[in-house]
Amino acid sequence: MNNICISLAHGNGGRLMRQLIEEIFYRHLNNGSLNIDLDAAPVKLGDGEVWVTTDGFTVDPLEFPGGNIGSLAIHGTINDLSVSGAVPVYLTLNAYIEEGLELARLDRIVASLGDAARRCGVSIVAGDTKVVGKGQGGGLYLATTGIGLRMPGLRLGMEYIEAGDAVLVSGPVGDHGAAVMLAREQFGMRGDLASDSAPVFALAQALMTFTGLRFMRDPTRGGVATVLHEIVRITGCGIRLRAAAMPVREQVQSVCDILGYDPLYLACEGRVLAVVDANQATDALDLLRQTEGGAGAAVVGSIEPRGPVVVETEFGGERILQELEDDPLPRIC
Amino acid sequence: MNNICISLAHGNGGRLMRQLIEEIFYRHLNNGSLNIDLDAAPVKLGDGEVWVTTDGFTVDPLEFPGGNIGSLAIHGTINDLSVSGAVPVYLTLNAYIEEGLELARLDRIVASLGDAARRCGVSIVAGDTKVVGKGQGGGLYLATTGIGLRMPGLRLGMEYIEAGDAVLVSGPVGDHGAAVMLAREQFGMRGDLASDSAPVFALAQALMTFTGLRFMRDPTRGGVATVLHEIVRITGCGIRLRAAAMPVREQVQSVCDILGYDPLYLACEGRVLAVVDANQATDALDLLRQTEGGAGAAVVGSIEPRGPVVVETEFGGERILQELEDDPLPRIC
Repeated sequence: MNNICISLAHGNGGRLMRQLIEEIFYRHLNNGSLNIDLDAAPVKLGDGEVWVTTDGFTVDPLEFPGGNIGSLAIHGTINDLSVSGAVPVYLTLNAYIEEGLELARLDRIVASLGDAARRCGVSIVAGDTKVVGKGQGGGLYLATTGIGLRMPGLRLGMEYIEAGDAVLVSGPVGDHGAAVMLAREQFGMRGDLASDSAPVFALAQALMTFTGLRFMRDPTRGGVATVLHEIVRITGCGIRLRAAAMPVREQVQSVCDILGYDPLYLACEGRVLAVVDANQATDALDLLRQTEGGAGAAVVGSIEPRGPVVVETEFGGERILQELEDDPLPRIC
Repeated sequence: MNNICISLAHGNGGRLMRQLIEEIFYRHLNNGSLNIDLDAAPVKLGDGEVWVTTDGFTVDPLEFPGGNIGSLAIHGTINDLSVSGAVPVYLTLNAYIEEGLELARLDRIVASLGDAARRCGVSIVAGDTKVVGKGQGGGLYLATTGIGLRMPGLRLGMEYIEAGDAVLVSGPVGDHGAAVMLAREQFGMRGDLASDSAPVFALAQALMTFTGLRFMRDPTRGGVATVLHEIVRITGCGIRLRAAAMPVREQVQSVCDILGYDPLYLACEGRVLAVVDANQATDALDLLRQTEGGAGAAVVGSIEPRGPVVVETEFGGERILQELEDDPLPRIC
C-alpha cells in the first residue's frame, strides 16, 4: 500500500478497505479456509459438544514485552476454550482500527496474530474491520470469538468444587499486568519483565487427565483474586490461600511494592488456576511442572466449607482478600 | 447501579463490572442459555452445515431514527448469515464501552439488542465487555459473531452467477446511510427518514425457494455499488443497471443531491441484493413484494458477459459506476 497510516477511507467498504484486508489481514491470516469474499463461512465440526467464547482486547500499549494485542487476542480466546475443557478449532476476528495507526505497526500485529493462531492450530474463518476517527479509539481494538469441541460428559465446572479440594496455579502470577504496566511510559519505570501471554492448552489438557480435576480458569483481568471471588460467590465455599506458596516473580513483587498493587489482582495471560481433588493435587502438580509453561506451578491453597477468601500471610497472620473495586489498570488486556 | 455514567472501574473484572453485566447485559439478554459465569458456553447444533460470520459496529450517533447500535448489531450479523443461505441460531457479543457513557443510554441500547435478538429467534450465548478511557472510544462499539445452519448442497454463491441473470434489490436503497447522516447534527439537516435496519431472513428464505437464485448479499457499508463491484471483480462479468428502476426514496435522493452523495454508495441495513436466473426474476420479484420488508423490491439490472458496472441514466445516457474511494461516511455501521 502507498499509504503509511490508516485513513478513514480504509474503512469505507471500497478499494482501500479491500487492499487493507488483502495486503495485511488476508496475507497473514490465510490458512486455506479463510475466504474474504464471503459474508459468512462454513466450518466443519467433528464429533463433540460445540463450545463458544468471545473476548475483546484493548491493551495499551499495543505492543509490550512478551507479545502484542495480536498474539494476546489469540491466546486469550483459545485459553477460555482450553480451561473450559474444549479443543479450540476456529476463530473469528474483529478489528477496530483508529485513523492514524501506522500500517507497519498493524502489519506486525496481524502477523503476530497469524503466527499465534498457526502455533495454536486454530483457523481464522471470518473477520471484519472497522476504521474509527482519530481520538475515537486506542489505536487498535480486537475481538476474537472461538469455537471449540469438548468431549461429551466431561465433569468440569465450578459445581464440582468441594471443600477440601486443592487450589493450584500453573506458574508465577501477575506477569502480564506488571509487564504492561512497565511498558507504559507514564510510570517512568523500566525492567526486563515480559508478559506471560501464551496458550494454556497443553496445561489444561495435562490437568484433564486427572479424574479429580474440578475446575479451571485463566486468571486474566482482575487476576487470581477475581477468580477466587467468583468461586466463593458461586459455590458458597470459602478459600484459604498461603501467601508463601503463591509464585510471584521478584520483579513483579517489586513493581507492586513501588506502585502499591497486589499481584493477586494483576492479570495473567498464560496461567491456569485449577481446583483439584486434594488426593490428586501432588500428581497434578508434578505433571503440570513437566508440561510446557508449567515449570513454576504450585499448590497455593484449599477450598474451605464456607467463608471469604483468606490469605495466610508469610508472617503467620491472616487477611481477607477483598473483591476488586477501583481499576488499578484499565486496558490491561 | 448507583452510578449514572460508565467509569473505568466498570471494566476491571471486579464488583462493578459484574454489576454492569448482571444489571444491564444479563437482564436484557438472558434467554435461558446465557450463563455469565462461564468462560465458554456449549451450543447445540442440529443437522446442517455450520456457518460463521462476524461484524463490528461503530455507528455514530449510537441512536438514530429506526434503530440504534444494539439492534443494528443483531440485524447486521443475522443478515450476513441469512444472505449466505443459513438460518441464524447463536450470537456472541463484544462491547467496548467508553468511560462516561450514560448508563441509561447503554441500558436502552442493550434492551434494544435483546429485543432484536428475540424477534430474530437467536440466542446470545457468550459475551465480553471492555471499558476504555474517555477519548479512546466512540461511546460504544459492538461486535457480534453469528453461528447458523445451512442446508447441505445449497448452490448459492457468486460462482453461480451467469451472464443474462437479473439483479434485484428488495427495497429502496440508501435509507440507513441517509438516516444516519441526517441524525448527525453536523449536517444541520432534519428529516423524518428512518434507517431500514431490519432482519432480511424472511426475504432471503423467500428467494431461496427459487432454483434460479444464484447469489444474495446485504449491501451495507459501501452500498449497492460496492456489492456490484465485488461481483464484477470476482466473476469477471459486467453489470448493467437501469437508474430509473433503482428504488430510492425521494428524501434520500434529496439528501444526496444537497450533500453531493450517490445513493448507490450509501449503506442499507435491511435490504437484499440478489442475482436470479432471468427466467425466474418476475416470480422472484412477486414473492419478494409479498414478503415482509420487500414491498419496494425491483429488478434493477442484468449481468453482462464482461465489462464494468454501467448505469443507464434516466435520460438515455450511460455512466460507469466507479469503485468507492474516499469515505463519504465513516462510522455508518
